[in-house]
Amino acid sequence: MKIDVHFTPSEIRPSSLSNRTVVVIDVLRASSSMVVALDNQAKEIIPVSSVAEAKRAVAQTKKGKTVLCGERKGKRVPGFDLGNSPLEFEGSVVKGKTLVMATTNGTKAINRAVPTRALLVGCFLNVDSVANRLMDSDGDLTIVCSGKEGRYSLEDSVCAGMVVFRLECKNASPILSDAARAASAIYREWSLKQHLLLQQTEHGRYLASLGLLEDLLLCGLVNRYDVVPVYRRGRVVKG
Amino acid sequence: MKIDVHFTPSEIRPSSLSNRTVVVIDVLRASSSMVVALDNQAKEIIPVSSVAEAKRAVAQTKKGKTVLCGERKGKRVPGFDLGNSPLEFEGSVVKGKTLVMATTNGTKAINRAVPTRALLVGCFLNVDSVANRLMDSDGDLTIVCSGKEGRYSLEDSVCAGMVVFRLECKNASPILSDAARAASAIYREWSLKQHLLLQQTEHGRYLASLGLLEDLLLCGLVNRYDVVPVYRRGRVVKG
Repeated sequence: MKIDVHFTPSEIRPSSLSNRTVVVIDVLRASSSMVVALDNQAKEIIPVSSVAEAKRAVAQTKKGKTVLCGERKGKRVPGFDLGNSPLEFEGSVVKGKTLVMATTNGTKAINRAVPTRALLVGCFLNVDSVANRLMDSDGDLTIVCSGKEGRYSLEDSVCAGMVVFRLECKNASPILSDAARAASAIYREWSLKQHLLLQQTEHGRYLASLGLLEDLLLCGLVNRYDVVPVYRRGRVVKG
Repeated sequence: MKIDVHFTPSEIRPSSLSNRTVVVIDVLRASSSMVVALDNQAKEIIPVSSVAEAKRAVAQTKKGKTVLCGERKGKRVPGFDLGNSPLEFEGSVVKGKTLVMATTNGTKAINRAVPTRALLVGCFLNVDSVANRLMDSDGDLTIVCSGKEGRYSLEDSVCAGMVVFRLECKNASPILSDAARAASAIYREWSLKQHLLLQQTEHGRYLASLGLLEDLLLCGLVNRYDVVPVYRRGRVVKG
């Protein structure tokens, strides 16, 4: 198995994802929200790349069956049902519903990464479940960090490195790219203090400044869920 | 002092470099070639972004005063005087000359990074000289890794982390961005085996496959030169 990492979606080339399994990571917070929503029995999530696209997608769905979610600058988009806090995606709100989700980084990264062989959504909450799924799959892997508005984000690359490290430990000598080796090193640096990471990263501190401290605590939990969201024909569903 | 790192030039935004000191790193090989050329008393280097631009620039200079240099896919461009191996930039060839240089990553990264407050060119060969220069400067710093055709490269980020680590040790608590913290971690991972790095990275292995083993040995030497190339009005000169 060859493993590559993109630290930002701008590294995606058609050739770099062709015929590979892809994991998209957005720890803060789209990946984490998707995991919680699907665990709370949301039917599916339609990831879109803009607010306008979200409104168009909702107009095409049945009234009462759809929940419109997303953020800009970390805050709920005016008029939307939910923002992007995983704490909002409770069963009473999302069970059986189609979620249309527009976030600044994560849902864009997903749309930029398709089409590909298979696409999973990962974060700290489900890291072992994702790694186990990857171990069972043949073929090569690219992990795409969503980053923050085109820039590097530490929490996504620590999580990417956590996946790489698990595959290094369990897989018979995977072949690591430059970036995969770097991600593994970055993860190992933070492995014993991962519980302190999110309150220290740039985007974590920004969310804390908005008062979203509980989001950091939830998104930092490792292996709290065993849901692996997968992308199929425009929808993210429980894999 | 705030310190940021861009792992690829695609992270450059006008705002991200505004009023900052910038260090552009292309260990393999543009930065290393510039250091060697200036140490061998080249007058100046005009970094250009394409082969066509290089030919136009040479047409505007005095015959016999200019050396046309550059590579595509690691190999000398047909018709050019030199490729991009630092071993080619001997005093007998470059002394007193204007070099027009077109490389795939490094010279493009330099042109993408200007205009800014000040721009230095760094690599393993001159890392302490660059770090010392930065310590004497006030203001904030962004280190731009040239990468490889828009992708991450390990050798550039190890070198970026080496600069960050020096500033961490010597400067009273610089404020590190997410990427600067990651670069420092990546450097520390490789610090004691830096002499083995270049033969293991993706681009290093590619250059080795072209037979350019001595380039790897030379570019891997730490602090072999005290030259700090600086960019001024379209030219890179000895700082």
